[in-house]
Amino acid sequence: MSDTDAVLFANEAFYRAFADRDEDAMDDLWSASEQIACLHPGWGPLFGREEVLSSWTAIIRNPDSPPILCHDAHAHVYGETAYVICFEEIAGNFLVATNVFVREGRVWKMVHHQAGPTSVRPEVEDNGPAGPVN
Amino acid sequence: MSDTDAVLFANEAFYRAFADRDEDAMDDLWSASEQIACLHPGWGPLFGREEVLSSWTAIIRNPDSPPILCHDAHAHVYGETAYVICFEEIAGNFLVATNVFVREGRVWKMVHHQAGPTSVRPEVEDNGPAGPVN
Repeated sequence: MSDTDAVLFANEAFYRAFADRDEDAMDDLWSASEQIACLHPGWGPLFGREEVLSSWTAIIRNPDSPPILCHDAHAHVYGETAYVICFEEIAGNFLVATNVFVREGRVWKMVHHQAGPTSVRPEVEDNGPAGPVN
Repeated sequence: MSDTDAVLFANEAFYRAFADRDEDAMDDLWSASEQIACLHPGWGPLFGREEVLSSWTAIIRNPDSPPILCHDAHAHVYGETAYVICFEEIAGNFLVATNVFVREGRVWKMVHHQAGPTSVRPEVEDNGPAGPVN
Protein backbone atom coordinates (compact mmCIF):
# COMPACT_ATOMS: atom_id res chain seq x y z
CA MET A 1 0.00 0.00 0.00
CA SER A 2 1.44 3.40 -0.94
CA ASP A 3 1.80 6.12 1.67
CA THR A 4 -1.03 8.02 0.00
CA ASP A 5 -3.31 4.99 0.13
CA ALA A 6 -2.35 4.35 3.76
CA VAL A 7 -3.20 7.94 4.70
CA LEU A 8 -6.52 7.75 2.86
CA PHE A 9 -7.19 4.49 4.70
CA ALA A 10 -6.54 6.23 8.04
CA ASN A 11 -8.82 9.05 6.95
CA GLU A 12 -11.56 6.59 6.06
CA ALA A 13 -11.11 4.89 9.45
CA PHE A 14 -11.82 8.24 11.11
CA TYR A 15 -15.17 8.62 9.32
CA ARG A 16 -15.93 4.94 9.85
CA ALA A 17 -15.37 5.33 13.61
CA PHE A 18 -17.76 8.27 13.60
CA ALA A 19 -20.31 6.41 11.47
CA ASP A 20 -20.11 3.30 13.66
CA ARG A 21 -20.18 5.40 16.85
CA ASP A 22 -17.11 3.40 17.86
CA GLU A 23 -15.50 5.25 20.76
CA ASP A 24 -12.60 2.81 21.07
CA ALA A 25 -11.74 3.12 17.38
CA MET A 26 -11.98 6.92 17.60
CA ASP A 27 -9.67 6.89 20.63
CA ASP A 28 -7.19 4.58 18.92
CA LEU A 29 -6.89 6.48 15.65
CA TRP A 30 -5.73 9.72 17.33
CA SER A 31 -2.03 9.87 18.21
CA ALA A 32 -1.26 9.06 21.85
CA SER A 33 2.33 10.27 21.65
CA GLU A 34 2.13 13.57 19.73
CA GLN A 35 0.37 16.83 20.46
CA ILE A 36 -3.17 16.79 19.04
CA ALA A 37 -5.76 19.47 18.36
CA CYS A 38 -9.23 19.84 16.85
CA LEU A 39 -11.28 22.68 15.40
CA HIS A 40 -14.94 21.70 15.25
CA PRO A 41 -17.04 24.08 13.14
CA GLY A 42 -18.06 27.04 15.28
CA TRP A 43 -16.12 25.86 18.34
CA GLY A 44 -12.92 27.23 19.78
CA PRO A 45 -9.67 25.29 19.44
CA LEU A 46 -9.35 22.07 21.47
CA PHE A 47 -5.87 20.94 22.52
CA GLY A 48 -4.70 17.60 23.92
CA ARG A 49 -6.23 14.15 24.09
CA GLU A 50 -8.58 14.91 26.97
CA GLU A 51 -10.24 17.91 25.30
CA VAL A 52 -10.23 16.45 21.79
CA LEU A 53 -11.41 12.92 22.60
CA SER A 54 -14.05 14.02 25.10
CA SER A 55 -15.52 16.19 22.33
CA TRP A 56 -15.72 13.20 20.00
CA THR A 57 -17.19 11.02 22.75
CA ALA A 58 -19.90 13.60 23.33
CA ILE A 59 -20.64 13.78 19.60
CA ILE A 60 -20.66 10.00 19.18
CA ARG A 61 -22.89 9.47 22.23
CA ASN A 62 -25.38 12.12 21.12
CA PRO A 63 -28.25 10.21 19.47
CA ASP A 64 -29.11 13.34 17.50
CA SER A 65 -25.69 13.44 15.79
CA PRO A 66 -26.49 13.00 12.10
CA PRO A 67 -24.80 10.50 9.78
CA ILE A 68 -21.70 11.70 7.94
CA LEU A 69 -20.32 10.91 4.49
CA CYS A 70 -16.80 11.64 3.29
CA HIS A 71 -16.33 12.73 -0.33
CA ASP A 72 -13.42 13.68 -2.61
CA ALA A 73 -10.58 12.87 -0.22
CA HIS A 74 -7.18 14.16 -1.39
CA ALA A 75 -4.02 13.17 0.53
CA HIS A 76 -0.79 15.16 0.54
CA VAL A 77 2.13 13.26 2.08
CA TYR A 78 5.29 15.01 3.32
CA GLY A 79 7.57 12.29 4.62
CA GLU A 80 6.32 11.29 8.07
CA THR A 81 3.40 13.72 8.07
CA ALA A 82 0.38 14.06 5.81
CA TYR A 83 -2.93 15.81 5.56
CA VAL A 84 -6.16 14.97 3.82
CA ILE A 85 -8.64 17.47 2.43
CA CYS A 86 -12.17 16.15 1.96
CA PHE A 87 -15.79 17.12 1.94
CA GLU A 88 -18.07 16.03 4.78
CA GLU A 89 -21.77 15.60 4.01
CA ILE A 90 -23.87 15.96 7.16
CA ALA A 91 -27.65 15.94 6.90
CA GLY A 92 -27.56 17.38 3.39
CA ASN A 93 -25.08 20.12 4.29
CA PHE A 94 -21.46 20.14 3.23
CA LEU A 95 -18.31 20.98 5.14
CA VAL A 96 -14.71 20.92 4.02
CA ALA A 97 -12.17 19.34 6.34
CA THR A 98 -8.43 19.16 6.90
CA ASN A 99 -7.22 16.02 8.68
CA VAL A 100 -3.54 15.89 9.66
CA PHE A 101 -1.76 12.58 10.27
CA VAL A 102 1.69 11.50 11.45
CA ARG A 103 3.28 8.14 10.76
CA GLU A 104 3.75 6.03 13.89
CA GLY A 105 5.39 2.74 12.98
CA ARG A 106 3.23 1.08 10.33
CA VAL A 107 0.14 3.22 10.79
CA TRP A 108 -0.86 6.86 10.36
CA LYS A 109 -2.34 8.52 13.42
CA MET A 110 -4.51 11.64 13.40
CA VAL A 111 -3.10 14.72 15.13
CA HIS A 112 -5.48 17.44 13.94
CA HIS A 113 -8.93 17.93 12.42
CA GLN A 114 -10.60 21.10 11.21
CA ALA A 115 -13.97 21.28 9.47
CA GLY A 116 -15.79 24.35 8.25
CA PRO A 117 -18.63 25.35 5.93
CA THR A 118 -18.35 25.52 2.15
CA SER A 119 -20.71 26.65 -0.58
CA VAL A 120 -19.24 24.13 -3.01
CA ARG A 121 -20.40 20.56 -3.60
CA PRO A 122 -18.01 17.61 -4.02
CA GLU A 123 -17.36 16.26 -7.51
CA VAL A 124 -17.83 12.64 -6.51
CA GLU A 125 -21.13 11.57 -5.06
CA ASP A 126 -19.85 9.11 -2.47
CA ASN A 127 -16.43 7.73 -1.62
CA GLY A 128 -16.75 7.35 2.11
CA PRO A 129 -18.51 5.15 4.60
CA ALA A 130 -22.20 5.55 5.18
CA GLY A 131 -23.29 6.88 8.55
CA PRO A 132 -25.51 5.05 11.02
CA VAL A 133 -29.19 4.70 10.28
CA ASN A 134 -30.97 6.47 13.10
CA MET B 1 15.67 30.11 17.18
CA SER B 2 13.73 26.95 18.11
CA ASP B 3 11.69 25.09 15.52
CA THR B 4 8.53 26.29 17.24
CA ASP B 5 9.67 29.90 17.09
CA ALA B 6 10.68 29.52 13.47
CA VAL B 7 7.27 28.12 12.56
CA LEU B 8 5.52 30.93 14.44
CA PHE B 9 7.76 33.39 12.58
CA ALA B 10 6.68 31.87 9.26
CA ASN B 11 3.07 32.07 10.39
CA GLU B 12 3.50 35.74 11.29
CA ALA B 13 5.09 36.38 7.88
CA PHE B 14 1.93 35.02 6.27
CA TYR B 15 -0.29 37.50 8.09
CA ARG B 16 2.27 40.26 7.53
CA ALA B 17 2.22 39.62 3.77
CA PHE B 18 -1.56 39.86 3.84
CA ALA B 19 -1.51 43.01 5.97
CA ASP B 20 1.12 44.64 3.77
CA ARG B 21 -0.67 43.51 0.61
CA ASP B 22 2.72 42.18 -0.46
CA GLU B 23 2.11 39.82 -3.36
CA ASP B 24 5.77 38.87 -3.72
CA ALA B 25 6.06 37.97 -0.05
CA MET B 26 2.84 35.94 -0.25
CA ASP B 27 4.16 34.10 -3.30
CA ASP B 28 7.50 33.42 -1.63
CA LEU B 29 6.18 32.05 1.64
CA TRP B 30 4.20 29.24 -0.03
CA SER B 31 6.19 26.14 -0.96
CA ALA B 32 7.27 26.01 -4.61
CA SER B 33 8.37 22.37 -4.43
CA GLU B 34 5.61 20.61 -2.51
CA GLN B 35 1.90 20.17 -3.18
CA ILE B 36 -0.10 23.05 -1.71
CA ALA B 37 -3.78 23.61 -1.00
CA CYS B 38 -6.07 26.20 0.56
CA LEU B 39 -9.56 26.22 2.05
CA HIS B 40 -10.88 29.77 2.24
CA PRO B 41 -14.01 30.08 4.40
CA GLY B 42 -17.03 29.22 2.29
CA TRP B 43 -14.99 28.33 -0.81
CA GLY B 44 -14.27 24.95 -2.29
CA PRO B 45 -10.80 23.42 -2.00
CA LEU B 46 -8.02 25.04 -4.04
CA PHE B 47 -5.09 22.88 -5.14
CA GLY B 48 -1.70 23.86 -6.59
CA ARG B 49 0.21 27.12 -6.75
CA GLU B 50 -1.81 28.61 -9.60
CA GLU B 51 -5.18 28.21 -7.89
CA VAL B 52 -3.95 29.02 -4.39
CA LEU B 53 -1.79 32.03 -5.20
CA SER B 54 -4.23 33.56 -7.66
CA SER B 55 -6.82 33.47 -4.87
CA TRP B 56 -4.47 35.37 -2.56
CA THR B 57 -3.56 37.84 -5.29
CA ALA B 58 -7.26 38.55 -5.83
CA ILE B 59 -7.80 39.03 -2.09
CA ILE B 60 -4.73 41.24 -1.70
CA ARG B 61 -5.64 43.39 -4.71
CA ASN B 62 -9.22 43.89 -3.58
CA PRO B 63 -9.31 47.31 -1.90
CA ASP B 64 -12.33 46.18 0.10
CA SER B 65 -10.42 43.33 1.78
CA PRO B 66 -10.47 44.21 5.48
CA PRO B 67 -7.41 44.25 7.75
CA ILE B 68 -6.58 41.04 9.56
CA LEU B 69 -5.09 40.34 12.99
CA CYS B 70 -3.62 37.04 14.15
CA HIS B 71 -4.21 35.99 17.79
CA ASP B 72 -3.24 33.07 20.04
CA ALA B 73 -0.97 31.25 17.59
CA HIS B 74 -0.03 27.71 18.74
CA ALA B 75 2.58 25.74 16.78
CA HIS B 76 2.84 21.95 16.75
CA VAL B 77 6.06 20.69 15.16
CA TYR B 78 6.44 17.10 13.89
CA GLY B 79 9.98 16.83 12.54
CA GLU B 80 10.04 18.45 9.10
CA THR B 81 6.36 19.42 9.15
CA ALA B 82 4.34 21.67 11.44
CA TYR B 83 1.00 23.34 11.76
CA VAL B 84 -0.17 26.45 13.51
CA ILE B 85 -3.62 27.01 14.97
CA CYS B 86 -4.59 30.65 15.45
CA PHE B 87 -7.49 33.04 15.52
CA GLU B 88 -7.96 35.55 12.71
CA GLU B 89 -9.74 38.80 13.51
CA ILE B 90 -11.30 40.31 10.40
CA ALA B 91 -13.49 43.41 10.70
CA GLY B 92 -14.54 42.48 14.22
CA ASN B 93 -15.35 38.88 13.31
CA PHE B 94 -13.24 35.92 14.33
CA LEU B 95 -12.13 32.88 12.39
CA VAL B 96 -9.97 29.95 13.46
CA ALA B 97 -7.24 28.82 11.11
CA THR B 98 -4.93 25.89 10.50
CA ASN B 99 -1.70 26.74 8.68
CA VAL B 100 0.53 23.82 7.66
CA PHE B 101 4.26 24.30 7.00
CA VAL B 102 7.13 22.12 5.77
CA ARG B 103 10.80 22.78 6.43
CA GLU B 104 12.74 23.64 3.28
CA GLY B 105 16.38 24.21 4.15
CA ARG B 106 16.50 26.92 6.81
CA VAL B 107 12.96 28.19 6.39
CA TRP B 108 9.44 26.88 6.88
CA LYS B 109 7.18 27.15 3.83
CA MET B 110 3.38 27.11 3.90
CA VAL B 111 1.68 24.18 2.18
CA HIS B 112 -1.91 24.52 3.41
CA HIS B 113 -4.28 27.04 4.97
CA GLN B 114 -7.83 26.56 6.22
CA ALA B 115 -9.90 29.19 7.99
CA GLY B 116 -13.44 28.89 9.28
CA PRO B 117 -15.89 30.59 11.62
CA THR B 118 -15.81 30.25 15.40
CA SER B 119 -18.06 31.48 18.17
CA VAL B 120 -15.13 31.75 20.58
CA ARG B 121 -12.88 34.76 21.15
CA PRO B 122 -9.10 34.54 21.51
CA GLU B 123 -7.57 34.75 24.98
CA VAL B 124 -4.89 37.22 23.98
CA GLU B 125 -5.95 40.53 22.53
CA ASP B 126 -3.24 40.92 19.92
CA ASN B 127 -0.15 38.95 19.01
CA GLY B 128 -0.08 39.46 15.27
CA PRO B 129 0.67 42.23 12.81
CA ALA B 130 -1.82 44.98 12.28
CA GLY B 131 -3.59 45.15 8.96
CA PRO B 132 -3.43 48.05 6.51
CA VAL B 133 -5.30 51.22 7.31
CA ASN B 134 -7.80 51.70 4.54
